[in-house]
Amino acid sequence: MSPSDTRTALDRLGLATALAKARKSYAEGGIPIGAALVFHGNDSSSASQPPPQGNEGVAALSLSSGAAVLGSAHNARIQKCSPTLHAEIAALEDAGRLGAGVYRRCTMYTTLSPCSMCTGAILLYRIPRIVIGENTNFVGGEDLLRSAGVEVVVLQDGECRELMARFIKEKPEEWNEDIGEIS
Amino acid sequence: MSPSDTRTALDRLGLATALAKARKSYAEGGIPIGAALVFHGNDSSSASQPPPQGNEGVAALSLSSGAAVLGSAHNARIQKCSPTLHAEIAALEDAGRLGAGVYRRCTMYTTLSPCSMCTGAILLYRIPRIVIGENTNFVGGEDLLRSAGVEVVVLQDGECRELMARFIKEKPEEWNEDIGEIS
Ligand SMILES: [Ca+2]
Ligand SMILES: [Ca+2]
Ligand SMILES: [Zn+2]
Ligand SMILES: [Zn+2]
Repeated sequence: MSPSDTRTALDRLGLATALAKARKSYAEGGIPIGAALVFHGNDSSSASQPPPQGNEGVAALSLSSGAAVLGSAHNARIQKCSPTLHAEIAALEDAGRLGAGVYRRCTMYTTLSPCSMCTGAILLYRIPRIVIGENTNFVGGEDLLRSAGVEVVVLQDGECRELMARFIKEKPEEWNEDIGEIS
Repeated sequence: MSPSDTRTALDRLGLATALAKARKSYAEGGIPIGAALVFHGNDSSSASQPPPQGNEGVAALSLSSGAAVLGSAHNARIQKCSPTLHAEIAALEDAGRLGAGVYRRCTMYTTLSPCSMCTGAILLYRIPRIVIGENTNFVGGEDLLRSAGVEVVVLQDGECRELMARFIKEKPEEWNEDIGEIS
């Protein structure tokens, strides 16, 4: 595959991985937002470095030289009674402790535009690229990410959008709690 | 006590609570940063509302009408092998799920200037005030917080500073990992 074909294939897989977690969460009665941290180890600048090992290998998979899903998870507010396990935070947690250099060769995939906290986590670890399923139900820190040099891709995926819209309609109070809005 | 005396007493207690967690973490071989989420329920605007209940009561304590420590914790990178349980995130987690209105009547106390992720968490939940032990060992998102209208107080506490400086000298690689810096 050409580099751009590889990227498209990896983006499709990354978002599908995140969406699978969002669907799982919805099925559990939880907030249907999913995320995946994907190592894209095929940069020429990093070709000589080995890929990191995932800590559990649940979704590990290679598409190109060294690419792998390092972590994937869904929002766990309802399931774990957690105010901080947003999907992106939970995906970072699922990936475990990684050296600073690893994050700099990753893309974060998320089904919904990231809130301030998740935006800040991406900035903390200098993740250079984020692919967002949709930003019609919520718009988070995309401008802050762009101003910091992060590549932001919004796919406007219909499945992500419909799943989230359904949840917001069904459980508006839980959704407001998740984004710090007073119901 | 006058309102300003009450605030000073609450700030002293809040930072001491955070510092106790930082010391605990250091004793465990962990990163010595602590934080506490404190409800300051004595605002005239919120006088008619009851204080929330903490989820475990470990540090619950009243100093004024309804004030209470809702959550307190330390950085858990080393202890829990966690890349996201910075002290502030862990304190929010310790406090559990809270309605959006509760956060808006809280102060976050932290022994060290907050990183991008923790800054974003404070913005997500519209916590209106942060009291920082020191910002000589690290400066995080203070400007972003101020620009969003958050009151930022930096105490330049010697004990916070010395504990953190000792850790950075002893374990520079763990510290760099925590802030996404390549060692
Ligand atoms: Ca997983
Ligand atoms: Ca606690
Ligand atoms: Zn978030
Ligand atoms: Zn932090």
